[in-house]
Amino acid sequence: MQYPEPIAKLIDGYMKLPGIGEKTAVRLAFYTISMDTDDVNEFSQALVAAKKNLHYCSICGNITESDPCVICADKGRDRTKVIVVEQSKDVMSLEKMREYHGLYHVLHGVLSPMEGRGPEDINIASLVKRLQKNPDLTEVIIATNATPEGEATAMYISRLIKPANIKVTRLAHGLAVGSDIEYADEMTLYKAIEGRQEI
Amino acid sequence: MQYPEPIAKLIDGYMKLPGIGEKTAVRLAFYTISMDTDDVNEFSQALVAAKKNLHYCSICGNITESDPCVICADKGRDRTKVIVVEQSKDVMSLEKMREYHGLYHVLHGVLSPMEGRGPEDINIASLVKRLQKNPDLTEVIIATNATPEGEATAMYISRLIKPANIKVTRLAHGLAVGSDIEYADEMTLYKAIEGRQEI
Repeated sequence: MQYPEPIAKLIDGYMKLPGIGEKTAVRLAFYTISMDTDDVNEFSQALVAAKKNLHYCSICGNITESDPCVICADKGRDRTKVIVVEQSKDVMSLEKMREYHGLYHVLHGVLSPMEGRGPEDINIASLVKRLQKNPDLTEVIIATNATPEGEATAMYISRLIKPANIKVTRLAHGLAVGSDIEYADEMTLYKAIEGRQEI
Repeated sequence: MQYPEPIAKLIDGYMKLPGIGEKTAVRLAFYTISMDTDDVNEFSQALVAAKKNLHYCSICGNITESDPCVICADKGRDRTKVIVVEQSKDVMSLEKMREYHGLYHVLHGVLSPMEGRGPEDINIASLVKRLQKNPDLTEVIIATNATPEGEATAMYISRLIKPANIKVTRLAHGLAVGSDIEYADEMTLYKAIEGRQEI
């Protein structure tokens, strides 16, 4: 016996999402049928609306409704610094901190020779152009993830823009606040010792 | 900084699904924006279509496009047996086995005094009516889950319908095929020994 067609299609839809396999998709699809009709309609509309109404900012590459995005358009922000991140959601994480008032640049990925992703496949060229156009921009803070690909991307960008006399920094690595040394991995401990500071 | 409204709405939509918290919802929402427009539109339509076109079979309570469902309407099926399950997806699991050709009855839940769910909140009354109307139905196979609530529901149904001279059986508990005794929990081992059979 096959699933009735409407539910089979819905299972297919859920399975296109990352980290959702067949079993989870079946569970979500059956749950959807038991949901409130209004909730389902709203969710359905939100999917199309998000895809339709959101674009990438032509300056920084962040996801936005307007172009340029609210951060790039905000004249109150510190235009001497730009944080380079892998994904739009990293911008949100950094903004939640409420301590940084500079600009951002979203790469939409990292260099990954294993997956055949080179500098032309991520948003690097526009960063270089941005730096050339804005002489006020004097510091690039690289905040790619602490993965081998993130580190390699940081090194690549650093080598590319340092000759232009721009200060390039990298977020500090070390122990997470509130974490136990006992549970920290070796690489993190090594970075924490290497980056130790006088108190 | 808040998320742009279209993505905030989409995150809300994902968060209404079971087992999806805020972090996962954010990840899925951002992924959705990077998806193919056609895939997003199809998924969006599948949600509404599944909710709109699927109903519960008026006989067995299974999810169906037509009423009665294909199983209840199929004259080739053995009308002397009915398997009682908790959820529609359990029907699908049993049908995949291709060994059972009787009927089904979907309870849509189990008795749970802890959650205030009594016999009138699940699809039990219609099972009793069904048995009264169809004297051919002589065996009820209870296939609720092997949880305390599933067991209690099985006992309740058994006591309710046994006086009407209907054979009531329960799926066997024991070791899963291919599993190691080493990793089986005590309850399963106990049930496996209790239900041992001569070979």
